[in-house]
Amino acid sequence: MKVSMHALSADLFDNILKNLDWILGKGEAHAAQKKFDPAVLLAARLAPDMLPFTRQVQIACDIAKNALARLAGQEPPRFEDNETTFEQLHARIARTRDFLSSVPAAALEGSETRAIKVPAGERTLEFKGLEFLERWAIPNVFFHVTTAYNILRHNGVELGKRDFIGGGREL
Amino acid sequence: MKVSMHALSADLFDNILKNLDWILGKGEAHAAQKKFDPAVLLAARLAPDMLPFTRQVQIACDIAKNALARLAGQEPPRFEDNETTFEQLHARIARTRDFLSSVPAAALEGSETRAIKVPAGERTLEFKGLEFLERWAIPNVFFHVTTAYNILRHNGVELGKRDFIGGGREL
Repeated sequence: MKVSMHALSADLFDNILKNLDWILGKGEAHAAQKKFDPAVLLAARLAPDMLPFTRQVQIACDIAKNALARLAGQEPPRFEDNETTFEQLHARIARTRDFLSSVPAAALEGSETRAIKVPAGERTLEFKGLEFLERWAIPNVFFHVTTAYNILRHNGVELGKRDFIGGGREL
Repeated sequence: MKVSMHALSADLFDNILKNLDWILGKGEAHAAQKKFDPAVLLAARLAPDMLPFTRQVQIACDIAKNALARLAGQEPPRFEDNETTFEQLHARIARTRDFLSSVPAAALEGSETRAIKVPAGERTLEFKGLEFLERWAIPNVFFHVTTAYNILRHNGVELGKRDFIGGGREL
């Protein structure tokens, strides 16, 4: 037995998006407790020319759903980037997770060698399926989830590695 | 054909540690160009109670090497946590990558179902091999590499996603 491409994509992404959803909840609760507008956190950045929290969440969702769709040879659902509240970001994560769970493992059979094209500005990157996951999709999803976590952490939200790794659950 | 545990661990970790090494180089070059002590970056944090840059690099290395050793049923090499310069951190990454490349793929055959124990404070976490990689090792390695990146980025080092994803190489 080896590992399926489904485990390496849908399972991995669903788990970290579930944890991201939990992390969002801690951000919201912090704003409520400190009585400041939660939109301050949504617009927060680690550097003036880095993307704000909301975009980190949107992109993490998009890379996860688009990666799975590409591997399965499907057209990914398109989400408008119009979230302005934590509630709407929770909903985006939920819709993303719904999509991940809608793709049957069988659709990814053989996808480790499937040719995958990724638009990147004026160029098109070309990968085989496994390389696409390992070099592109997995690093990207974790990059944006971690950056979302770091933005909240930098702004005083009480988060620890357990929130990131286990979504607050006992491991 | 499915994906090997070796691809999902040694390959994935080696690639992101190679990119981390590149990111370190950009941090060093930034300090040299701005004529400040590089140790300032090594001690930088995103929050007063978060670990500094040096620890993020050390931990990323440790989780990668320990994970591979556990999956292969080997004793991982122990590294002292005594790095005080960028040069020494480059060396730690190189030693880690040397270890990753020293473990033959065959040693991970069947490791997806191997029982893995991880000491966590007073408790011991228990996983099957695949779950250990997906729920613990992969998220942890990417967490610390991304946080190292974010610390430098927050401190003005000119970094972009291309550095994180491709280590400055054309993708």
